[in-house]
Amino acid sequence: MTTFSADRSYAATLDSSDELAPFRDRFVHADRDLIYLDGNSLGPLPVRGQARVAEVVDQDWGVGLVRSWESWIRMPREAGDRLAEHLLGAMPGQVIVADSVSVNLYKLAWTALDVQRSRDVLITDDDNFPTDRYVLEGVAAQRGCELRLIHSDPDQGLNETELRSALDGRTALVSLSHVAYRSGALADMTQLTATIHEAGALALWDLCHSVGSVPVHLDDAGADLAVGCTYKYLNAGPGAPAFVYVRDDLQPRIRQPIWGWFGQRDQFAMGPAYDPAPGIDQFLTGTPNIIGTVAVEEGARLLGEAGIDRLRAKSIALTSYLIQLADEWLNPLGFTLASPREPERRGGHVSLRHDDAWQISQALIRENVIGDYRTPDRVRLGPAPAYTRFTDVWDAMDKLREITADKSYADIPAERSRVT
Amino acid sequence: MTTFSADRSYAATLDSSDELAPFRDRFVHADRDLIYLDGNSLGPLPVRGQARVAEVVDQDWGVGLVRSWESWIRMPREAGDRLAEHLLGAMPGQVIVADSVSVNLYKLAWTALDVQRSRDVLITDDDNFPTDRYVLEGVAAQRGCELRLIHSDPDQGLNETELRSALDGRTALVSLSHVAYRSGALADMTQLTATIHEAGALALWDLCHSVGSVPVHLDDAGADLAVGCTYKYLNAGPGAPAFVYVRDDLQPRIRQPIWGWFGQRDQFAMGPAYDPAPGIDQFLTGTPNIIGTVAVEEGARLLGEAGIDRLRAKSIALTSYLIQLADEWLNPLGFTLASPREPERRGGHVSLRHDDAWQISQALIRENVIGDYRTPDRVRLGPAPAYTRFTDVWDAMDKLREITADKSYADIPAERSRVT
Repeated sequence: MTTFSADRSYAATLDSSDELAPFRDRFVHADRDLIYLDGNSLGPLPVRGQARVAEVVDQDWGVGLVRSWESWIRMPREAGDRLAEHLLGAMPGQVIVADSVSVNLYKLAWTALDVQRSRDVLITDDDNFPTDRYVLEGVAAQRGCELRLIHSDPDQGLNETELRSALDGRTALVSLSHVAYRSGALADMTQLTATIHEAGALALWDLCHSVGSVPVHLDDAGADLAVGCTYKYLNAGPGAPAFVYVRDDLQPRIRQPIWGWFGQRDQFAMGPAYDPAPGIDQFLTGTPNIIGTVAVEEGARLLGEAGIDRLRAKSIALTSYLIQLADEWLNPLGFTLASPREPERRGGHVSLRHDDAWQISQALIRENVIGDYRTPDRVRLGPAPAYTRFTDVWDAMDKLREITADKSYADIPAERSRVT
Repeated sequence: MTTFSADRSYAATLDSSDELAPFRDRFVHADRDLIYLDGNSLGPLPVRGQARVAEVVDQDWGVGLVRSWESWIRMPREAGDRLAEHLLGAMPGQVIVADSVSVNLYKLAWTALDVQRSRDVLITDDDNFPTDRYVLEGVAAQRGCELRLIHSDPDQGLNETELRSALDGRTALVSLSHVAYRSGALADMTQLTATIHEAGALALWDLCHSVGSVPVHLDDAGADLAVGCTYKYLNAGPGAPAFVYVRDDLQPRIRQPIWGWFGQRDQFAMGPAYDPAPGIDQFLTGTPNIIGTVAVEEGARLLGEAGIDRLRAKSIALTSYLIQLADEWLNPLGFTLASPREPERRGGHVSLRHDDAWQISQALIRENVIGDYRTPDRVRLGPAPAYTRFTDVWDAMDKLREITADKSYADIPAERSRVT
């Protein structure tokens, strides 16, 4: 590998030796000049995903009509097994595609309290993604339990000492994000799970910002429960259904709270009482969203083909390069790194702090570079290894430098309104 | 109107004077010879729905990328208001498209128990759709409440006397289906709601089999809560998101149990504690399924254009005609009507009882006529006024007569396996 240089030719060299470069063409690039660094919020449209969705609509629905349920009915499980195999390090029968992350968190937190009968404390961290905190807050209120928030550094992520001091014999469940949504800090799932287990608690991992971006080894880490979303690195489209993981030996011991007909054993007997389906199927509730589930399966297949280890290696190279350019160009302009500097402690995105982050992120969009803003003062950039080039990173950072140096964002109101 | 005749020319005459006939072309008919009488399970693909889904995928997602959330974020509410206006008899701000029927039933049943603090009984009927019974069974178990099942005649539907005798000062909520999934029996929503209110209970209506098929007047009926699905008469596709109605004066008094980030006031501030959004928006949980929500809005628009009163008039004509043919042809072959005979007591589908219903329904599919089977011995037929012709009903009934008379279904195993 050649030595780092801030010259664009260095980026071009890295691109020319990138073995994942051909995967860029697996995505629709409607605007060839657009630099998209927000796939960690909404992944772009995969070419095959587009075709599969059209096929499901035009053929399965349009032609097959209700008869297509013969195959659709297996899809939530098939898509789950595909995710498990390619991206989650899990044996089959432990993952199912269903509902949203919020609804799935609710099911799992509830379930954990049932399993851990004598324990009445839930733990999460104060920098966890809002829906994780809110759902747990709700479950705690409904179950008369306590929600303990441990402090997590908004730049550096979870701190094991904080976690240890919060754990005790009352702790039923600890729910953490594998990759922090703001900083991109990557938690040590294996070590933290062991720490949680030492205290007799269950470990629930939110994989929204890690699935498809960093290797996940749920089985090896001994994780008990997990959820994740599919519209970020999995590129399954806006509001595509989420997934649930429940370790197989836990499955017979639990009953999730939303007793819908798709979680029923022998569903079409339409029997008098709820009798949960064996295994992970119990975690289905209502009629699954088929178009979205197809897109999830396609997303898992695409990343499986690229290979999560190759994706991770390129992701580290991309974010490291981004940080090198930030050090060189942006630090003198008032930016500071708001993510871990060590590659092994980072997920797939990087946050940069600046007082005018909101205006700068908006000015960047005006320049056809899409990253995003995160409260209170972060520009968040997610180069995705499946389709982002090193030259894209160079061009984006060059724009960022230009916008900040020239204060060309000064005309943008400083209000921090809605950003997804 | 000409007098009924069992001759096919009578059906042709009815078709020729059908003012909704042009709406048939609003749907994809991939197989012109197929007779589809199962739109009450999965509605067919609308031509404009197909185009809108493709537009959302190709343009909004493919080109707009994350920027499209600027408009997507309003869609669950906009689709809800469209449903309210065209099909639910509800003022704006009371309906939102979200999650599945099962998840929404869970939210509402939970909420009702909170509102009705001193009351600890839920009531539904023993012939209600499985997911309704199971979800309530689950909520009752979790809240330490009692679930009372009133008896409902599987052919004739709800009985007000049964309901009255079950209601008492402990009743928090009564949850009923407006149209029974098996028999098609149509409940008198206004009268039953009044009866429920007399006892101080809340009325929750499941509109899955009525929305888009019979006029619904939630506001006028004084309904408190409602849910409904969108993949039947609304033709929004497999697993498209469901909807929730909460009467506006109830909204400030309630907090639903799944505290997701899309139900949060000032969502993107990502603040420390859950603070529910005002109004119906609180009933959102996770990131909404956008492709499905667009299809729901399109479905509501299409039926709104046809007009629910015209749809209902034709629906009654179709089902009445179907029953006339059944009386004439099928009763001598061992069939009996398993739906109310009076048009005003029926929704959009009709069930016919026969000992060999499972085999007959399968043989019918083999003859390119799709209805469905319902336990234990019903052939269920749903002629949908937006696209079913009177000649379709004639042809379907003719096949049914032929299959049954010839016992041409005898080669089909009598096992009653999975049917959606």
